[in-house]
Amino acid sequence: MSLLEKLDTAAAARKAQLPDGLGAFGIPIEETYSATEARIGGRRVLMLGTNNYLGLSFTPECRQAAHQAIDQEGTGTTGSRMANGNYSGHRALEKEFAEFYQCRACIVFTTGYQANLGTISGLVGAGDVVLIDGDAHASIYDGCILSGADIIRFRHNDMADLEKRLRRLGERSRNTLIIVEGIYSMLGDQAPLAEIVKLKNAYHSTLLLDEAHSLGVLGATGQGLVEKTGLIKEVDFITGTFSKSLCGIGGFCVSNHPQLDQLRYVSHPYIFTASPSPATIASTRAALKLLRDGQLLRERLWRNAQHLYASLKEMGYQVGPEPGPIVAVMLDSPQQALALWNGLMGDDIYVNLVLPPAAPDGKSLVRCSINAAHSLEQIDRVCETFSRLYASLER
Amino acid sequence: MSLLEKLDTAAAARKAQLPDGLGAFGIPIEETYSATEARIGGRRVLMLGTNNYLGLSFTPECRQAAHQAIDQEGTGTTGSRMANGNYSGHRALEKEFAEFYQCRACIVFTTGYQANLGTISGLVGAGDVVLIDGDAHASIYDGCILSGADIIRFRHNDMADLEKRLRRLGERSRNTLIIVEGIYSMLGDQAPLAEIVKLKNAYHSTLLLDEAHSLGVLGATGQGLVEKTGLIKEVDFITGTFSKSLCGIGGFCVSNHPQLDQLRYVSHPYIFTASPSPATIASTRAALKLLRDGQLLRERLWRNAQHLYASLKEMGYQVGPEPGPIVAVMLDSPQQALALWNGLMGDDIYVNLVLPPAAPDGKSLVRCSINAAHSLEQIDRVCETFSRLYASLER
Repeated sequence: MSLLEKLDTAAAARKAQLPDGLGAFGIPIEETYSATEARIGGRRVLMLGTNNYLGLSFTPECRQAAHQAIDQEGTGTTGSRMANGNYSGHRALEKEFAEFYQCRACIVFTTGYQANLGTISGLVGAGDVVLIDGDAHASIYDGCILSGADIIRFRHNDMADLEKRLRRLGERSRNTLIIVEGIYSMLGDQAPLAEIVKLKNAYHSTLLLDEAHSLGVLGATGQGLVEKTGLIKEVDFITGTFSKSLCGIGGFCVSNHPQLDQLRYVSHPYIFTASPSPATIASTRAALKLLRDGQLLRERLWRNAQHLYASLKEMGYQVGPEPGPIVAVMLDSPQQALALWNGLMGDDIYVNLVLPPAAPDGKSLVRCSINAAHSLEQIDRVCETFSRLYASLER
Repeated sequence: MSLLEKLDTAAAARKAQLPDGLGAFGIPIEETYSATEARIGGRRVLMLGTNNYLGLSFTPECRQAAHQAIDQEGTGTTGSRMANGNYSGHRALEKEFAEFYQCRACIVFTTGYQANLGTISGLVGAGDVVLIDGDAHASIYDGCILSGADIIRFRHNDMADLEKRLRRLGERSRNTLIIVEGIYSMLGDQAPLAEIVKLKNAYHSTLLLDEAHSLGVLGATGQGLVEKTGLIKEVDFITGTFSKSLCGIGGFCVSNHPQLDQLRYVSHPYIFTASPSPATIASTRAALKLLRDGQLLRERLWRNAQHLYASLKEMGYQVGPEPGPIVAVMLDSPQQALALWNGLMGDDIYVNLVLPPAAPDGKSLVRCSINAAHSLEQIDRVCETFSRLYASLER
């Protein structure tokens, strides 16, 4: 079979698996009105499916910073950090991230995806081991593939399973990078960091924590799970992204280990890519300040999240293990999830539909993402629709 | 040895290999004055080491488009194309790229690095073969690793070697993706596309051409090597980047094969990353129009490139196989390359230094990148400095 015939076969298999009439993926956003509303299919739709956790996408400070950078530095750097793309803004943002985490140093990457690819493939290689949570994001998994290390998955948030696998590794646990996430993107639950740190220390492993969904969301100043748990000194490497609470595009790795610096010389996803645009760097710097001082935003975010989580649970929906800005509703089948998604869209509410194989354990999810810019009235409207639809779902 | 000890060992080995006093990598750009000048070390430096081939980084049309997008759509989309990041600008840019190449469809990626990763890992998998040029860019190589396909390299631009390897594959040549580049980033030479197409057809393989460095540079409307050679119908997939001649950040794949669409459902580097920022999409759309109509820019670019190439060759420098916007000077040793690089910087001229193992075949390069915004006076100044330094290089 030729390559093109193989792709045709794969496409046919995919289409056969999915329910008919599926328009939930890559839905065209016709216009963006604000951090909470957009035009879809000619209608004004309430957006409950973005990663805009602090609602900063239209903030005047961030836009102003971006405007200024475009006029002073142009639309792009046209080069990598190693060559001609190492502008003062890039270095300043790295310094500001290092200060924010009170860490020795930071490396900025051009996307969050590349931050995980570049950090993981720079830290481990053939002969090493990566021990990753079963619900790990695809960027973590791809970074592991790229590294050439042996990949072992432990059951999601299952500490007995993690310990069993560390024990089995014997001496190789010293060559092992454990990778977990602050908040998991599928069910919105958090890693049991204190227990993970204990195991990592007991087995002399190294720990990487991805705060992509927890940055800005957890901790007094928004550092993420490391701040909420007070365990920042125990985590070896922290990665994160600019494209969620910071409303930019890019990613970072911070660490107290001087070895972080070696990534600048060996990590392909850092070296062989153009550096982030001046506008993105500038808006991200402005957003990081707002995030750090964003206690009120976090209060609003958590008020919204807890309200939605508690309401859906009370209605009888099966929700994720704990409240948070990602409120995932687990359905019995792809058809049921699609019916709920269609019902919400019928009431001009956009959420994310996640079907197997994208969701863990063959689950079908309707995933709501809350942000600080949502009003209580908007969340109430969402609750009313969910409530009305509950009875109509075929079981 | 623990992971961190291993990184220390690697860093020590790296430092031992490189000449002392090396400040050529990641040099801080303090301020960017224009498409050809920047402040480095407090001095006004002529930039001959960017990928800004058409000199569009400060173009009013591109900046204006970016400004407008920031105000209308915010600083970032905060989501993937599959979820909430499929804005009208993203779809319009895909349509415009497809029209530009007169191809059926286009997929836009968030970086050029991810365009190669996403296209290659989406097209081939375990059991397939990728047959790549020995000088292929790291993003191509990483895409091959991520795909799980068997990786075979053929000698750079060596058609006898390519044919030998295709023949040896037997029936597997039908499952083979050949990957070449329009202009190679190291020596600036072009792929012998007509011969490659003949071999690809004879062995029923599939061909991917990366036009990263040739987009905007080759062909009457700037399509790249496909246009210069008139072979666009013979190339199965074309990838490219926004971060060179288009002065943005991002990448694309265009194709006439309907199978391209399957990448949107299987390609991690497309699915699991936030979509490009509205500002980047808007400035890239504006730049693509200027590129298409940029015959005069291309004339200036080639005038500059041919002048520098011919001058350096006449002085006795060993230059790449053919003239082009990348003019690579091959030196006898890393020390000699560093001496030349330092001499140029002493005259306020910035070029790229490429040392082993980054350069092919253990070469040490001083690589000049020309753009359309360079004046003949600037190129003359560069030639004078190169000429003065020639005699002083220790051999």
